Amino acid sequence: MNVSTVVLPPFLLLDSWLQTWLLEDIGRGDRTTQGLFPTGAPPGEAQWIVKEAGIIAGLPISARVFSLLSPDVTFTTLVAEGATCDRGTVIAALRGPLDALLMGERVALNLAMRLSGIASLTRQYGDQIADLPTRLTDTRKTTPGLRALEKYATQVGGAVNHRVGLDDAVMIKDNHIAAAGGIEPAIAQIRSRIPYPLTIEVETETLEQVEAALHQGADIIMLDNMSLTMMRQAVAMIRKTSDRIKIEASGNITLETIRSVAETGVDYISSSAPITRSTWLDLSMRML
Amino acid sequence: MNVSTVVLPPFLLLDSWLQTWLLEDIGRGDRTTQGLFPTGAPPGEAQWIVKEAGIIAGLPISARVFSLLSPDVTFTTLVAEGATCDRGTVIAALRGPLDALLMGERVALNLAMRLSGIASLTRQYGDQIADLPTRLTDTRKTTPGLRALEKYATQVGGAVNHRVGLDDAVMIKDNHIAAAGGIEPAIAQIRSRIPYPLTIEVETETLEQVEAALHQGADIIMLDNMSLTMMRQAVAMIRKTSDRIKIEASGNITLETIRSVAETGVDYISSSAPITRSTWLDLSMRML
Amino acid sequence: MNVSTVVLPPFLLLDSWLQTWLLEDIGRGDRTTQGLFPTGAPPGEAQWIVKEAGIIAGLPISARVFSLLSPDVTFTTLVAEGATCDRGTVIAALRGPLDALLMGERVALNLAMRLSGIASLTRQYGDQIADLPTRLTDTRKTTPGLRALEKYATQVGGAVNHRVGLDDAVMIKDNHIAAAGGIEPAIAQIRSRIPYPLTIEVETETLEQVEAALHQGADIIMLDNMSLTMMRQAVAMIRKTSDRIKIEASGNITLETIRSVAETGVDYISSSAPITRSTWLDLSMRML
Amino acid sequence: MNVSTVVLPPFLLLDSWLQTWLLEDIGRGDRTTQGLFPTGAPPGEAQWIVKEAGIIAGLPISARVFSLLSPDVTFTTLVAEGATCDRGTVIAALRGPLDALLMGERVALNLAMRLSGIASLTRQYGDQIADLPTRLTDTRKTTPGLRALEKYATQVGGAVNHRVGLDDAVMIKDNHIAAAGGIEPAIAQIRSRIPYPLTIEVETETLEQVEAALHQGADIIMLDNMSLTMMRQAVAMIRKTSDRIKIEASGNITLETIRSVAETGVDYISSSAPITRSTWLDLSMRML
Amino acid sequence: MNVSTVVLPPFLLLDSWLQTWLLEDIGRGDRTTQGLFPTGAPPGEAQWIVKEAGIIAGLPISARVFSLLSPDVTFTTLVAEGATCDRGTVIAALRGPLDALLMGERVALNLAMRLSGIASLTRQYGDQIADLPTRLTDTRKTTPGLRALEKYATQVGGAVNHRVGLDDAVMIKDNHIAAAGGIEPAIAQIRSRIPYPLTIEVETETLEQVEAALHQGADIIMLDNMSLTMMRQAVAMIRKTSDRIKIEASGNITLETIRSVAETGVDYISSSAPITRSTWLDLSMRML
Amino acid sequence: MNVSTVVLPPFLLLDSWLQTWLLEDIGRGDRTTQGLFPTGAPPGEAQWIVKEAGIIAGLPISARVFSLLSPDVTFTTLVAEGATCDRGTVIAALRGPLDALLMGERVALNLAMRLSGIASLTRQYGDQIADLPTRLTDTRKTTPGLRALEKYATQVGGAVNHRVGLDDAVMIKDNHIAAAGGIEPAIAQIRSRIPYPLTIEVETETLEQVEAALHQGADIIMLDNMSLTMMRQAVAMIRKTSDRIKIEASGNITLETIRSVAETGVDYISSSAPITRSTWLDLSMRML
Repeated sequence: MNVSTVVLPPFLLLDSWLQTWLLEDIGRGDRTTQGLFPTGAPPGEAQWIVKEAGIIAGLPISARVFSLLSPDVTFTTLVAEGATCDRGTVIAALRGPLDALLMGERVALNLAMRLSGIASLTRQYGDQIADLPTRLTDTRKTTPGLRALEKYATQVGGAVNHRVGLDDAVMIKDNHIAAAGGIEPAIAQIRSRIPYPLTIEVETETLEQVEAALHQGADIIMLDNMSLTMMRQAVAMIRKTSDRIKIEASGNITLETIRSVAETGVDYISSSAPITRSTWLDLSMRML
Repeated sequence: MNVSTVVLPPFLLLDSWLQTWLLEDIGRGDRTTQGLFPTGAPPGEAQWIVKEAGIIAGLPISARVFSLLSPDVTFTTLVAEGATCDRGTVIAALRGPLDALLMGERVALNLAMRLSGIASLTRQYGDQIADLPTRLTDTRKTTPGLRALEKYATQVGGAVNHRVGLDDAVMIKDNHIAAAGGIEPAIAQIRSRIPYPLTIEVETETLEQVEAALHQGADIIMLDNMSLTMMRQAVAMIRKTSDRIKIEASGNITLETIRSVAETGVDYISSSAPITRSTWLDLSMRML
Repeated sequence: MNVSTVVLPPFLLLDSWLQTWLLEDIGRGDRTTQGLFPTGAPPGEAQWIVKEAGIIAGLPISARVFSLLSPDVTFTTLVAEGATCDRGTVIAALRGPLDALLMGERVALNLAMRLSGIASLTRQYGDQIADLPTRLTDTRKTTPGLRALEKYATQVGGAVNHRVGLDDAVMIKDNHIAAAGGIEPAIAQIRSRIPYPLTIEVETETLEQVEAALHQGADIIMLDNMSLTMMRQAVAMIRKTSDRIKIEASGNITLETIRSVAETGVDYISSSAPITRSTWLDLSMRML
Repeated sequence: MNVSTVVLPPFLLLDSWLQTWLLEDIGRGDRTTQGLFPTGAPPGEAQWIVKEAGIIAGLPISARVFSLLSPDVTFTTLVAEGATCDRGTVIAALRGPLDALLMGERVALNLAMRLSGIASLTRQYGDQIADLPTRLTDTRKTTPGLRALEKYATQVGGAVNHRVGLDDAVMIKDNHIAAAGGIEPAIAQIRSRIPYPLTIEVETETLEQVEAALHQGADIIMLDNMSLTMMRQAVAMIRKTSDRIKIEASGNITLETIRSVAETGVDYISSSAPITRSTWLDLSMRML
Repeated sequence: MNVSTVVLPPFLLLDSWLQTWLLEDIGRGDRTTQGLFPTGAPPGEAQWIVKEAGIIAGLPISARVFSLLSPDVTFTTLVAEGATCDRGTVIAALRGPLDALLMGERVALNLAMRLSGIASLTRQYGDQIADLPTRLTDTRKTTPGLRALEKYATQVGGAVNHRVGLDDAVMIKDNHIAAAGGIEPAIAQIRSRIPYPLTIEVETETLEQVEAALHQGADIIMLDNMSLTMMRQAVAMIRKTSDRIKIEASGNITLETIRSVAETGVDYISSSAPITRSTWLDLSMRML
Repeated sequence: MNVSTVVLPPFLLLDSWLQTWLLEDIGRGDRTTQGLFPTGAPPGEAQWIVKEAGIIAGLPISARVFSLLSPDVTFTTLVAEGATCDRGTVIAALRGPLDALLMGERVALNLAMRLSGIASLTRQYGDQIADLPTRLTDTRKTTPGLRALEKYATQVGGAVNHRVGLDDAVMIKDNHIAAAGGIEPAIAQIRSRIPYPLTIEVETETLEQVEAALHQGADIIMLDNMSLTMMRQAVAMIRKTSDRIKIEASGNITLETIRSVAETGVDYISSSAPITRSTWLDLSMRML
């Protein structure tokens, strides 16, 4: 994985979130830190240290947290975003007014711990299929308010993002199909009402549904909870029609099953597990 | 645990968060759902189903999510908040305009899945010490933007909350102690600068520090990463001084160690694990 | 055109804009209306009347404006959204507290006048190619803050929307191509960094560029400012590769030239004119 | 016209609008530009060029747009605000990080094109009466959210602003008069309830109404849709009472009729046409 | 004074302020009230009682505070806005969910106490000149964030408002005059740059300045800190020019001096005292 | 009093308030100042002068107001926060662009005048008990929107803050006690539902209530409106139980009564008077 390919949300967007999260923690004031330094804190130094092995993600965001508290904080990353680090690795060196370091610590660490946990589990899934052309992708099962950052973390872990919201692609699911009276009318109705560059993905559970999706010109066909045999048949059917249609497999993907799913020839495997099944990577800040 | 003791954040606060989270997902519009129902959706019905056994938390919040999309949605909870549910349990019945059900589904489920996961792991920790007077409490290691709700989930799981932000109690940690030149000057300086009803907690790692904290009148003394033997000595020292001082144990609390820590006689055991080490409880929505 | 296919932004989004716009006009208070009715206004009735022939757009939005001022206002639309109306047509009947009618009048009318003007000119462009398969589409040349509504108006006028922002599709323009060292590296770099369902459109000015875009698998190819002859050649080249690639023509589209461009066989013709060259359709409110 | 007399809204106000408008376009991120430059863009240069002759307005605002994306962008205006420019004129030179130039381009241009279009048509109206003491003024028919900037553009075009909202002056219209039972009670009621420095303008359609307005001490009398003969009579009546009363003519003002209306001796002629009847002035950005 | 002439800010504006103020008090939750009623409070009844004699102002605003917490609260005012009440008077009866009553109590009372205090002192000033044509007016010395409501309270107390912000009238003070090189150039420059219906007030300290202001056509002339003799001369000079020019006296107005200033014949006397020198009127809520 | 102990709210919080308050005054623009300096104001100098003797509070906040308008303003405080100043004292020297000085003047002064007024009266109350161990504390009777700053001002005046909102401590009042069926069940219910570090204060009016509060382990006992005799008895009862329980006296505290209340031995005396009974300290800005 080439970490230089990951893309952060623009600061124009990010800064207002970071400010909200700092205020969530600080509230009406940090009684402890401001109680010690009511009129200006002396400078201090600190390190960030890895407490359990994993993939590091989120350091540029953590750096930005401190800069919102004081322009005088320097946050020097000592490892690359996406690096695999052992327990004990020093991943960042901080310098700046003590009150900014202490007031920003928790929010900055919470973000990096959560994102590093996601990146770490994403990497484990991705490693199973690293030599295959199939790519791992994420879902909309993300913590409310954190989607852009959690999807950034799956990128750092080596996945490619799926759609980011309900507005940047169409996904026709079983409930939609039922409400519309079938895949074909559903695609037809929606296609006439969306920005034309948007793609239409259809969730299919049977080969008949794959057929219908192909017939109506779906751009992406998701094979949902199919057996490996049925998946192989679906892949063959779709490839015969066009090699521009993207094929996604979904449903109960685990570290054990992901490789055999990839071997069916699908382009993408989507899984919420890297986000919903990951725990936080333990990081801590040590004052020097 | 008596679930009637849990307290939700007021809707005045909650509603603006829910609105932000809905907009995070919906963005400029739900291309799929609005593409199917551009001029008013028919009513529909759905159920929420448990996909893996656990403790349910967050249903009143999920219900509110839908009500922000349409006052015509009714969300009927079929189990009590905090109930232990097996795989397959139907926990809620929904009725209302199909577009509101489909546009709110993901945000509402994401919240309930995250909170139920936290409540479930909290309960596991709490169960280890259920017959002892010691109470489990949480920390400030919470997902940015979700603190009030994640702390609500630990309540549902049976824990009591620790301070919610940097402003509702003082916690003097090693970094603060170093900066102030010792525990005693740190407490003295801070006490003169905070709202007087606030309590002062001091993190201690040695019996000398416990002594200093006692001497300066700390309200809460945290025993951080002490051996069980040292903890017992510290508890004895503190109890001798006053039974109004609260004692909290912290540091590397696991399902295996929590009981022996509780048996030292501390009042509270704080652990970030229920929040940072829990995975989401799998829930899904099925249209009827 | 079937107006039932147009899709409004969700009220969750729309309401906060309408509130901002009402406050822009009302400021610290409507000195005239509140000066007359400081303690509650009597009910009144009004009509909206067309002052020049055109296509009506925006009535559901105008209705919502009044509802934010008072739940007691009823706004009954008397013509369908997208209807062609002659001068003098009564298009809506209003009833409600006089102060809500008078305080909301200007914002509600300004919206409907602007949107109806856009729909009217869009329809003129669309009428030139109504019997051809080519569809008219819009651009990102929209009034800041009004994009979603102006793009709604082009829908009402019969166009299909292009991407709505910089995040729901990729458009590689000459400046991007130059910066990346050519079309092929540009597509390659971007494809690895975007959510996978997003499409990639490339702006081309020569057949060589069309070739490069085809080679790298562009999803949409824009023929920018090409002669009709070159356009026909480009269309042929692209169709030979795949009928799933969308072809868009752009550049100096006028009411006079649009038909001959469509006859080259392109799928879409994009023009900013319906938005940047339209004037407001004159509407007024008459109290009864 | 002396352009140095135009007044921009304060940046305190303007910046939050510009930020909102940038986010409207950028959404969750500029997939194209950030896809090319995920980790910092190289510097670039660009020019802004006039594509059709007209009056330039809005350059200081466009400059501010880029500065919000990066403090390293320099935007050098090469013509004065309000200058008349021919097709091909280079009006600004830009330098700065390529991503800031490319992400800000559309919003900055959209603003300048809209405002220049307004200034250009305003100037045409103003030129008809340039040698007369009568001044052109605008109305509240402005694009929602853009009022302050559109009224800035009419200033650049040579007009003087009318009231900016419902709160900085009183305008008693026919509907208000009807509701109050006549001009005299309407003025009396309102005068007792408004900040005392505010002026009261009354819309009149007959000489009897002018008489009533004079009798009750109106500060500004608007002659609405009167014949030229009636206007002259009204002007004479008003001037006889006091030369401090301002007289405004309104209603169906066109490039053809404006001069003869001015010659009746009114102080102001209000017209929504410069805003509602203007099209955008075509401008474009060229990377160097 | 006829209280029916006072004008509240529109709820569109007011509601967002009230919400902010409720959240200032409630923060992350009302630990006491929500601790007692975590799952829905029983209904309760309460009364508001006057603890010291004075003028009541702000009841409609207080009522709105409770309605934002629960639509089920009824707040019945038992005295008219602006009524003079003795100690012990019951001014309002409340009914509704106990938690809404208890959580809204402090904010609602704080507003009514502050506004009633202002109205009470305003009335004392106004009573000194009640039989004279001169009117009392306020200034921009108001508590940040409360201006609209504090100016509402001076209305309730019988005053007429002065301009509400820097944008609804011009006031040329000594610093502006010095910067512009005199009153005449200052008026000339400003007049060409402001919305034309706005009035221009000039602060004068000498008869020469009055002369200059008259010469340049000032709409309002403020006599600042002049002796009674000089004021009388100034009034005479101004009246000779036009009876449409408003005359305002300002500077060290006290309950002792206000009447003699009014007797000089000025139209308005401005004083910040009713706002900056008033104390809160004591009110309390009693549960029944 | 050692002024270095006062703690300002963090700028992260403060800045958004100051921006709101500046916009409250400036609205759509400062017609006077921007009318004089439409294209950049020359630098100027000014002084802030005390017009009546008192305690100065709020200068760091006023300085911040100007810095939000222009980074080029320097605001040099010439006296320490909390200093006692005579009439005529120059307390600050300002330098910077004239428009920033003139546009920020009113908001900055209004804040400093209000806060200095509070600090001045707080000091008068505090001086009565300066030689006793009892401390003066404030209440939640604060101007909506200004609580943090008004409580900052009481600190400057020498008081210690009480709780800042409904969320940082529990206060069980008569209404809560009635609703819960007594002090003991009220404390019990609330204690199980609050963050554990929070303290519980109980309002008592009789010795029986003091007894009940002691029995249930209240952290703070407020003696509300008790006679001096009863207070002394209550203090004795409480001290016998534990010297860690804080005792607060409340109710009708005046400059005359405060000392005798303090002599009963209570730890804190709470009074709203320094905030609700103080008038603004007169300050003004003089351009040089």
